[in-house]
Amino acid sequence: MTIKLICLDADDTLWHNMRHFNATEDALLDMLRPFADVDVTRERLITCETRNLPLYGYGAKGFTLSMIETAVELAGDALSKSMIEGILAAGRALLAHPVQLFDGVEETLERLSDIAPLVLVTKGDLLHQESKLAASGLGDMFSGIEIVSDKKVDTFRSLFSRHAIEPQQAVMAGDSMRSDILPALEAGAWAAFIPQDGAWAHEVAKAPSDHARFTQIERLGDLPDWIATIG
Amino acid sequence: MTIKLICLDADDTLWHNMRHFNATEDALLDMLRPFADVDVTRERLITCETRNLPLYGYGAKGFTLSMIETAVELAGDALSKSMIEGILAAGRALLAHPVQLFDGVEETLERLSDIAPLVLVTKGDLLHQESKLAASGLGDMFSGIEIVSDKKVDTFRSLFSRHAIEPQQAVMAGDSMRSDILPALEAGAWAAFIPQDGAWAHEVAKAPSDHARFTQIERLGDLPDWIATIG
Repeated sequence: MTIKLICLDADDTLWHNMRHFNATEDALLDMLRPFADVDVTRERLITCETRNLPLYGYGAKGFTLSMIETAVELAGDALSKSMIEGILAAGRALLAHPVQLFDGVEETLERLSDIAPLVLVTKGDLLHQESKLAASGLGDMFSGIEIVSDKKVDTFRSLFSRHAIEPQQAVMAGDSMRSDILPALEAGAWAAFIPQDGAWAHEVAKAPSDHARFTQIERLGDLPDWIATIG
Repeated sequence: MTIKLICLDADDTLWHNMRHFNATEDALLDMLRPFADVDVTRERLITCETRNLPLYGYGAKGFTLSMIETAVELAGDALSKSMIEGILAAGRALLAHPVQLFDGVEETLERLSDIAPLVLVTKGDLLHQESKLAASGLGDMFSGIEIVSDKKVDTFRSLFSRHAIEPQQAVMAGDSMRSDILPALEAGAWAAFIPQDGAWAHEVAKAPSDHARFTQIERLGDLPDWIATIG
Protein backbone atom coordinates (compact mmCIF):
# COMPACT_ATOMS: atom_id res chain seq x y z
CA MET A 1 0.00 0.00 0.00
CA THR A 2 1.42 3.38 -0.99
CA ILE A 3 0.92 6.26 1.41
CA LYS A 4 -0.47 9.25 -0.49
CA LEU A 5 -1.26 11.68 2.34
CA ILE A 6 0.44 12.42 5.65
CA CYS A 7 -1.71 14.25 8.21
CA LEU A 8 -0.07 15.88 11.20
CA ASP A 9 -1.41 17.39 14.37
CA ALA A 10 0.15 20.75 15.32
CA ASP A 11 -0.03 21.53 19.07
CA ASP A 12 2.46 19.33 20.96
CA THR A 13 3.30 17.47 17.77
CA LEU A 14 5.14 20.24 15.87
CA TRP A 15 5.45 22.81 18.64
CA HIS A 16 5.04 23.17 22.40
CA ASN A 17 1.55 23.96 23.59
CA MET A 18 0.53 22.20 26.83
CA ARG A 19 3.47 23.66 28.73
CA HIS A 20 1.98 27.10 28.12
CA PHE A 21 -1.51 26.02 29.18
CA ASN A 22 -0.06 24.23 32.22
CA ALA A 23 1.98 27.26 33.29
CA THR A 24 -1.15 29.41 32.97
CA GLU A 25 -3.12 26.90 35.00
CA ASP A 26 -0.40 26.83 37.69
CA ALA A 27 -0.66 30.62 38.01
CA LEU A 28 -4.42 30.25 38.56
CA LEU A 29 -3.90 27.53 41.19
CA ASP A 30 -1.49 29.85 43.01
CA MET A 31 -3.85 32.80 42.79
CA LEU A 32 -6.73 30.77 44.25
CA ARG A 33 -4.65 29.13 47.00
CA PRO A 34 -6.21 31.39 49.69
CA PHE A 35 -9.59 29.91 48.77
CA ALA A 36 -8.94 26.31 47.82
CA ASP A 37 -6.36 23.55 47.74
CA VAL A 38 -4.46 23.18 44.49
CA ASP A 39 -6.14 19.81 43.85
CA VAL A 40 -9.60 21.22 44.43
CA THR A 41 -8.99 24.15 42.09
CA ARG A 42 -7.59 21.84 39.40
CA GLU A 43 -10.61 19.58 39.72
CA ARG A 44 -13.05 22.52 39.53
CA LEU A 45 -11.29 23.95 36.49
CA ILE A 46 -11.45 20.63 34.62
CA THR A 47 -15.15 20.28 35.51
CA CYS A 48 -15.78 23.82 34.31
CA GLU A 49 -13.85 23.33 31.04
CA THR A 50 -15.65 20.06 30.34
CA ARG A 51 -19.05 21.64 31.01
CA ASN A 52 -18.26 24.56 28.67
CA LEU A 53 -16.69 22.51 25.89
CA PRO A 54 -19.90 22.03 23.84
CA LEU A 55 -20.37 25.81 23.80
CA TYR A 56 -16.80 27.18 23.80
CA GLY A 57 -14.99 24.45 21.89
CA TYR A 58 -11.23 24.06 22.23
CA GLY A 59 -8.68 26.83 22.56
CA ALA A 60 -7.22 29.57 24.71
CA LYS A 61 -10.21 31.93 24.70
CA GLY A 62 -12.59 29.31 26.10
CA PHE A 63 -9.90 28.27 28.57
CA THR A 64 -9.59 31.88 29.78
CA LEU A 65 -13.37 32.13 30.24
CA SER A 66 -13.35 28.85 32.20
CA MET A 67 -10.50 30.13 34.41
CA ILE A 68 -12.55 33.25 35.19
CA GLU A 69 -15.62 31.12 35.97
CA THR A 70 -13.57 28.91 38.29
CA ALA A 71 -12.17 31.97 40.08
CA VAL A 72 -15.71 33.29 40.59
CA GLU A 73 -16.82 29.93 42.00
CA LEU A 74 -13.92 29.57 44.41
CA ALA A 75 -13.19 33.15 45.50
CA GLY A 76 -16.87 34.06 45.84
CA ASP A 77 -17.37 37.52 47.31
CA ALA A 78 -13.61 37.85 47.80
CA LEU A 79 -13.22 38.02 44.02
CA SER A 80 -11.14 41.09 43.21
CA LYS A 81 -10.41 43.30 40.25
CA SER A 82 -6.74 42.26 40.29
CA MET A 83 -7.63 38.56 40.08
CA ILE A 84 -9.71 39.08 36.95
CA GLU A 85 -7.03 41.35 35.48
CA GLY A 86 -4.45 38.66 36.20
CA ILE A 87 -6.48 35.95 34.45
CA LEU A 88 -7.22 38.16 31.43
CA ALA A 89 -3.50 38.97 31.14
CA ALA A 90 -2.58 35.27 31.44
CA GLY A 91 -5.09 34.44 28.70
CA ARG A 92 -3.64 37.09 26.41
CA ALA A 93 -0.13 35.82 27.11
CA LEU A 94 -1.29 32.31 26.18
CA LEU A 95 -2.56 33.63 22.84
CA ALA A 96 0.61 35.62 22.20
CA HIS A 97 3.39 33.26 23.34
CA PRO A 98 6.13 32.67 20.78
CA VAL A 99 6.00 29.38 18.87
CA GLN A 100 8.71 26.93 20.00
CA LEU A 101 9.21 24.14 17.49
CA PHE A 102 10.23 20.68 18.68
CA ASP A 103 13.81 19.76 17.81
CA GLY A 104 14.33 18.69 14.22
CA VAL A 105 10.77 19.37 13.07
CA GLU A 106 11.79 21.13 9.86
CA GLU A 107 14.11 18.31 8.76
CA THR A 108 11.46 15.73 9.56
CA LEU A 109 8.80 17.61 7.58
CA GLU A 110 11.18 17.74 4.62
CA ARG A 111 11.72 13.98 4.78
CA LEU A 112 7.98 13.40 5.12
CA SER A 113 7.11 15.67 2.21
CA ASP A 114 9.38 13.53 -0.01
CA ILE A 115 7.03 10.62 0.76
CA ALA A 116 3.63 12.30 0.31
CA PRO A 117 1.85 15.66 0.55
CA LEU A 118 1.46 16.94 4.11
CA VAL A 119 -1.76 18.20 5.64
CA LEU A 120 -1.94 19.97 9.00
CA VAL A 121 -5.00 18.99 11.05
CA THR A 122 -5.46 21.07 14.17
CA LYS A 123 -8.21 22.26 16.51
CA GLY A 124 -8.52 25.32 18.72
CA ASP A 125 -9.23 28.97 18.09
CA LEU A 126 -9.14 29.66 14.36
CA LEU A 127 -7.11 32.88 14.47
CA HIS A 128 -4.75 31.52 17.13
CA GLN A 129 -3.95 28.40 15.10
CA GLU A 130 -3.42 30.49 11.96
CA SER A 131 -1.15 32.85 13.88
CA LYS A 132 0.93 30.00 15.30
CA LEU A 133 1.31 28.41 11.89
CA ALA A 134 2.41 31.75 10.43
CA ALA A 135 4.88 32.27 13.28
CA SER A 136 6.25 28.74 12.86
CA GLY A 137 7.42 29.44 9.33
CA LEU A 138 6.23 25.93 8.39
CA GLY A 139 3.18 26.95 6.37
CA ASP A 140 4.74 26.39 2.96
CA MET A 141 5.55 22.76 3.76
CA PHE A 142 1.85 21.86 3.91
CA SER A 143 -0.33 21.35 0.90
CA GLY A 144 -3.40 21.66 3.09
CA ILE A 145 -4.32 23.27 6.41
CA GLU A 146 -7.39 22.02 8.25
CA ILE A 147 -8.36 24.00 11.33
CA VAL A 148 -11.36 22.16 12.72
CA SER A 149 -13.60 22.58 15.76
CA ASP A 150 -13.07 18.93 16.73
CA LYS A 151 -11.37 15.84 15.29
CA LYS A 152 -13.92 13.12 14.81
CA VAL A 153 -14.15 10.11 12.51
CA ASP A 154 -16.11 12.17 9.97
CA THR A 155 -13.44 14.90 10.03
CA PHE A 156 -10.92 12.38 8.71
CA ARG A 157 -13.38 10.68 6.32
CA SER A 158 -14.24 13.96 4.64
CA LEU A 159 -10.57 15.01 4.56
CA PHE A 160 -9.56 11.80 2.77
CA SER A 161 -12.50 12.09 0.40
CA ARG A 162 -11.62 15.69 -0.52
CA HIS A 163 -8.07 14.55 -1.27
CA ALA A 164 -9.50 11.70 -3.39
CA ILE A 165 -7.61 8.98 -1.54
CA GLU A 166 -8.58 5.76 0.22
CA PRO A 167 -8.29 5.94 4.04
CA GLN A 168 -5.61 3.22 4.03
CA GLN A 169 -3.45 5.50 1.84
CA ALA A 170 -3.32 8.06 4.68
CA VAL A 171 -1.28 8.37 7.89
CA MET A 172 -2.22 10.57 10.85
CA ALA A 173 0.35 11.40 13.53
CA GLY A 174 -0.21 13.28 16.77
CA ASP A 175 0.01 13.39 20.55
CA SER A 176 -3.66 12.87 21.38
CA MET A 177 -4.99 9.32 21.56
CA ARG A 178 -8.55 10.67 21.68
CA SER A 179 -8.38 13.28 18.91
CA ASP A 180 -5.60 12.17 16.55
CA ILE A 181 -5.31 8.40 16.79
CA LEU A 182 -8.66 6.76 17.52
CA PRO A 183 -10.77 8.69 14.98
CA ALA A 184 -8.11 8.32 12.23
CA LEU A 185 -7.92 4.56 12.83
CA GLU A 186 -11.71 4.29 12.82
CA ALA A 187 -11.80 6.17 9.53
CA GLY A 188 -9.48 3.50 8.11
CA ALA A 189 -6.13 5.31 8.13
CA TRP A 190 -2.77 4.43 9.67
CA ALA A 191 -1.97 6.27 12.90
CA ALA A 192 1.21 7.02 14.83
CA PHE A 193 0.86 8.10 18.46
CA ILE A 194 3.64 10.38 19.77
CA PRO A 195 2.83 10.89 23.47
CA GLN A 196 4.00 14.04 25.26
CA ASP A 197 4.41 14.77 28.95
CA GLY A 198 1.74 16.89 30.58
CA ALA A 199 -1.11 15.87 28.30
CA TRP A 200 -4.52 17.34 29.04
CA ALA A 201 -6.71 14.76 30.84
CA HIS A 202 -9.44 15.35 28.27
CA GLU A 203 -7.25 14.01 25.46
CA VAL A 204 -6.19 10.81 27.23
CA ALA A 205 -7.76 7.55 26.05
CA LYS A 206 -6.87 3.86 25.96
CA ALA A 207 -4.51 2.79 23.21
CA PRO A 208 -5.86 0.23 20.75
CA SER A 209 -4.41 -3.22 21.44
CA ASP A 210 -2.84 -5.15 18.64
CA HIS A 211 -4.04 -2.93 15.80
CA ALA A 212 -2.28 -3.51 12.47
CA ARG A 213 -2.46 0.15 11.41
CA PHE A 214 -1.34 1.63 14.75
CA THR A 215 2.06 2.38 16.22
CA GLN A 216 3.51 4.39 19.07
CA ILE A 217 6.76 6.26 18.44
CA GLU A 218 8.98 8.37 20.62
CA ARG A 219 9.37 11.41 18.44
CA LEU A 220 8.12 12.85 15.14
CA GLY A 221 11.59 12.10 13.70
CA ASP A 222 10.72 8.39 13.85
CA LEU A 223 7.69 8.80 11.60
CA PRO A 224 9.39 8.54 8.16
CA ASP A 225 10.95 5.17 9.07
CA TRP A 226 7.63 3.78 10.25
CA ILE A 227 5.89 4.93 7.08
CA ALA A 228 8.62 3.16 5.10
CA THR A 229 7.55 -0.13 6.73
CA ILE A 230 3.97 0.40 5.50
CA GLY A 231 4.87 0.89 1.86
CA MET B 1 -20.28 36.94 -18.27
CA THR B 2 -21.76 33.85 -16.62
CA ILE B 3 -21.78 33.71 -12.84
CA LYS B 4 -20.32 30.40 -11.68
CA LEU B 5 -20.11 30.91 -7.92
CA ILE B 6 -22.33 32.74 -5.43
CA CYS B 7 -20.70 33.54 -2.10
CA LEU B 8 -22.86 34.55 0.83
CA ASP B 9 -22.12 35.98 4.24
CA ALA B 10 -24.01 34.32 7.12
CA ASP B 11 -24.43 36.59 10.18
CA ASP B 12 -27.04 39.29 9.43
CA THR B 13 -27.28 38.12 5.83
CA LEU B 14 -28.99 34.75 6.35
CA TRP B 15 -29.87 35.04 10.04
CA HIS B 16 -30.04 37.61 12.84
CA ASN B 17 -26.81 38.21 14.71
CA MET B 18 -26.19 41.85 15.68
CA ARG B 19 -29.47 42.08 17.56
CA HIS B 20 -28.12 39.42 19.95
CA PHE B 21 -24.76 41.18 20.36
CA ASN B 22 -26.54 44.52 20.81
CA ALA B 23 -28.90 43.13 23.45
CA THR B 24 -25.92 41.67 25.31
CA GLU B 25 -24.10 44.99 25.07
CA ASP B 26 -27.18 46.83 26.37
CA ALA B 27 -27.21 44.55 29.41
CA LEU B 28 -23.55 45.45 30.05
CA LEU B 29 -24.28 49.18 29.70
CA ASP B 30 -27.08 48.82 32.26
CA MET B 31 -24.91 46.85 34.66
CA LEU B 32 -22.15 49.48 34.52
CA ARG B 33 -24.51 52.48 34.80
CA PRO B 34 -23.51 53.05 38.47
CA PHE B 35 -19.93 53.59 37.27
CA ALA B 36 -20.21 55.25 33.88
CA ASP B 37 -22.56 56.87 31.41
CA VAL B 38 -23.92 54.59 28.74
CA ASP B 39 -21.95 56.49 26.07
CA VAL B 40 -18.71 56.19 28.01
CA THR B 41 -19.16 52.46 28.54
CA ARG B 42 -20.00 51.91 24.87
CA GLU B 43 -16.91 53.88 23.84
CA ARG B 44 -14.67 51.94 26.25
CA LEU B 45 -16.06 48.61 25.06
CA ILE B 46 -15.40 49.46 21.41
CA THR B 47 -11.87 50.60 22.27
CA CYS B 48 -11.28 47.38 24.19
CA GLU B 49 -12.68 45.16 21.40
CA THR B 50 -10.59 46.94 18.79
CA ARG B 51 -7.44 46.60 20.89
CA ASN B 52 -8.06 42.87 21.41
CA LEU B 53 -9.06 42.09 17.82
CA PRO B 54 -5.56 41.11 16.61
CA LEU B 55 -5.35 38.57 19.45
CA TYR B 56 -8.95 37.42 19.93
CA GLY B 57 -10.27 37.72 16.39
CA TYR B 58 -14.01 37.98 15.77
CA GLY B 59 -16.76 36.20 17.66
CA ALA B 60 -18.70 35.86 20.88
CA LYS B 61 -15.90 34.47 23.07
CA GLY B 62 -13.58 37.41 22.41
CA PHE B 63 -16.55 39.75 22.86
CA THR B 64 -17.26 38.20 26.27
CA LEU B 65 -13.63 38.63 27.31
CA SER B 66 -13.71 42.27 26.18
CA MET B 67 -16.93 42.87 28.15
CA ILE B 68 -15.22 41.50 31.27
CA GLU B 69 -12.19 43.70 30.66
CA THR B 70 -14.40 46.76 30.26
CA ALA B 71 -16.25 45.95 33.48
CA VAL B 72 -12.91 45.67 35.32
CA GLU B 73 -11.81 49.04 33.93
CA LEU B 74 -15.01 50.88 34.80
CA ALA B 75 -16.12 49.24 38.05
CA GLY B 76 -12.61 49.15 39.52
CA ASP B 77 -12.56 47.94 43.10
CA ALA B 78 -16.35 47.82 43.10
CA LEU B 79 -16.19 44.89 40.71
CA SER B 80 -18.33 42.09 42.11
CA LYS B 81 -18.75 38.37 41.70
CA SER B 82 -22.30 38.85 40.44
CA MET B 83 -21.15 41.23 37.68
CA ILE B 84 -18.67 38.71 36.34
CA GLU B 85 -21.25 35.92 36.64
CA GLY B 86 -23.71 38.08 34.74
CA ILE B 87 -21.28 38.74 31.89
CA LEU B 88 -20.26 35.07 31.65
CA ALA B 89 -23.93 34.07 31.50
CA ALA B 90 -24.65 36.70 28.84
CA GLY B 91 -21.70 35.39 26.80
CA ARG B 92 -22.97 31.83 27.04
CA ALA B 93 -26.47 32.98 26.04
CA LEU B 94 -24.95 34.72 23.01
CA LEU B 95 -23.29 31.44 21.97
CA ALA B 96 -26.45 29.44 22.55
CA HIS B 97 -29.20 31.67 21.16
CA PRO B 98 -31.48 29.99 18.61
CA VAL B 99 -30.86 30.80 14.96
CA GLN B 100 -33.54 33.08 13.50
CA LEU B 101 -33.49 33.05 9.70
CA PHE B 102 -34.45 36.19 7.79
CA ASP B 103 -37.80 35.91 5.99
CA GLY B 104 -37.72 33.95 2.77
CA VAL B 105 -34.07 32.87 3.05
CA GLU B 106 -34.73 29.25 2.11
CA GLU B 107 -36.67 30.17 -1.05
CA THR B 108 -33.99 32.68 -2.06
CA LEU B 109 -31.20 30.12 -1.58
CA GLU B 110 -33.13 27.69 -3.77
CA ARG B 111 -33.45 30.29 -6.53
CA LEU B 112 -29.76 31.19 -6.18
CA SER B 113 -28.61 27.56 -6.29
CA ASP B 114 -30.40 27.21 -9.66
CA ILE B 115 -28.00 29.89 -10.96
CA ALA B 116 -24.67 28.66 -9.52
CA PRO B 117 -23.18 26.70 -6.62
CA LEU B 118 -23.41 28.50 -3.28
CA VAL B 119 -20.53 29.01 -0.86
CA LEU B 120 -20.96 30.32 2.68
CA VAL B 121 -18.18 32.71 3.76
CA THR B 122 -18.32 33.65 7.42
CA LYS B 123 -16.03 34.77 10.21
CA GLY B 124 -16.25 34.37 13.98
CA ASP B 125 -15.70 31.50 16.39
CA LEU B 126 -15.28 28.27 14.43
CA LEU B 127 -17.51 26.05 16.58
CA HIS B 128 -20.15 28.79 16.98
CA GLN B 129 -20.43 29.32 13.23
CA GLU B 130 -20.64 25.56 12.62
CA SER B 131 -23.31 25.25 15.30
CA LYS B 132 -25.38 28.08 13.82
CA LEU B 133 -25.16 26.59 10.34
CA ALA B 134 -26.22 23.20 11.70
CA ALA B 135 -29.13 24.79 13.60
CA SER B 136 -30.18 26.77 10.51
CA GLY B 137 -30.87 23.60 8.52
CA LEU B 138 -29.33 25.33 5.49
CA GLY B 139 -26.07 23.35 5.36
CA ASP B 140 -27.09 21.10 2.47
CA MET B 141 -27.76 24.08 0.20
CA PHE B 142 -24.08 25.04 0.19
CA SER B 143 -21.43 23.28 -1.85
CA GLY B 144 -18.76 24.92 0.26
CA ILE B 145 -18.44 26.34 3.77
CA GLU B 146 -15.61 28.76 4.52
CA ILE B 147 -15.22 29.78 8.14
CA VAL B 148 -12.36 32.25 8.14
CA SER B 149 -10.62 34.37 10.77
CA ASP B 150 -11.05 37.49 8.63
CA LYS B 151 -12.32 38.39 5.15
CA LYS B 152 -9.56 40.02 3.18
CA VAL B 153 -8.80 40.35 -0.51
CA ASP B 154 -6.62 37.23 -0.37
CA THR B 155 -9.43 35.27 1.30
CA PHE B 156 -11.55 35.81 -1.81
CA ARG B 157 -8.69 35.35 -4.28
CA SER B 158 -7.77 31.97 -2.83
CA LEU B 159 -11.45 30.96 -2.64
CA PHE B 160 -11.99 31.72 -6.34
CA SER B 161 -8.76 29.98 -7.25
CA ARG B 162 -9.73 26.82 -5.32
CA HIS B 163 -13.04 26.79 -7.20
CA ALA B 164 -11.13 27.25 -10.46
CA ILE B 165 -13.11 30.31 -11.54
CA GLU B 166 -12.22 33.82 -12.62
CA PRO B 167 -13.08 36.50 -10.02
CA GLN B 168 -15.55 38.13 -12.42
CA GLN B 169 -17.50 34.84 -12.47
CA ALA B 170 -18.21 35.21 -8.75
CA VAL B 171 -20.71 37.24 -6.72
CA MET B 172 -20.36 38.01 -3.01
CA ALA B 173 -23.35 39.27 -1.00
CA GLY B 174 -23.40 40.42 2.60
CA ASP B 175 -24.19 43.13 5.12
CA SER B 176 -20.65 44.35 5.82
CA MET B 177 -19.13 46.95 3.52
CA ARG B 178 -15.73 46.39 5.10
CA SER B 179 -15.65 42.57 5.20
CA ASP B 180 -17.96 41.38 2.42
CA ILE B 181 -18.06 44.06 -0.26
CA LEU B 182 -14.76 45.95 -0.50
CA PRO B 183 -12.41 42.90 -0.43
CA ALA B 184 -14.60 40.94 -2.90
CA LEU B 185 -14.64 43.90 -5.31
CA GLU B 186 -10.89 44.33 -4.98
CA ALA B 187 -10.43 40.64 -5.73
CA GLY B 188 -12.34 41.24 -8.97
CA ALA B 189 -15.76 39.79 -8.11
CA TRP B 190 -19.24 41.29 -8.22
CA ALA B 191 -20.64 42.38 -4.87
CA ALA B 192 -24.11 43.10 -3.50
CA PHE B 193 -24.38 45.08 -0.28
CA ILE B 194 -27.45 44.33 1.86
CA PRO B 195 -27.22 46.77 4.79
CA GLN B 196 -28.87 45.91 8.11
CA ASP B 197 -29.86 48.11 11.01
CA GLY B 198 -27.60 48.11 14.04
CA ALA B 199 -24.38 47.28 12.21
CA TRP B 200 -21.21 47.10 14.29
CA ALA B 201 -19.15 50.29 13.88
CA HIS B 202 -16.11 48.18 13.01
CA GLU B 203 -17.80 46.85 9.87
CA VAL B 204 -18.90 50.23 8.50
CA ALA B 205 -16.97 51.65 5.55
CA LYS B 206 -17.60 53.99 2.65
CA ALA B 207 -19.45 52.50 -0.30
CA PRO B 208 -17.59 52.51 -3.60
CA SER B 209 -18.90 55.22 -5.90
CA ASP B 210 -19.91 54.34 -9.41
CA HIS B 211 -18.44 50.84 -9.45
CA ALA B 212 -19.66 48.65 -12.33
CA ARG B 213 -19.56 45.41 -10.30
CA PHE B 214 -21.25 46.83 -7.17
CA THR B 215 -24.86 47.17 -6.15
CA GLN B 216 -26.85 47.83 -3.02
CA ILE B 217 -30.08 45.90 -2.52
CA GLU B 218 -32.73 45.94 0.17
CA ARG B 219 -32.99 42.26 0.91
CA LEU B 220 -31.36 38.96 -0.02
CA GLY B 221 -34.52 38.16 -2.02
CA ASP B 222 -33.46 40.83 -4.53
CA LEU B 223 -30.15 39.09 -5.26
CA PRO B 224 -31.30 36.61 -7.97
CA ASP B 225 -32.75 39.42 -10.10
CA TRP B 226 -29.54 41.46 -9.86
CA ILE B 227 -27.44 38.46 -10.82
CA ALA B 228 -29.73 38.01 -13.85
CA THR B 229 -28.74 41.48 -15.04
CA ILE B 230 -25.06 40.46 -14.93
CA GLY B 231 -25.45 37.34 -17.09
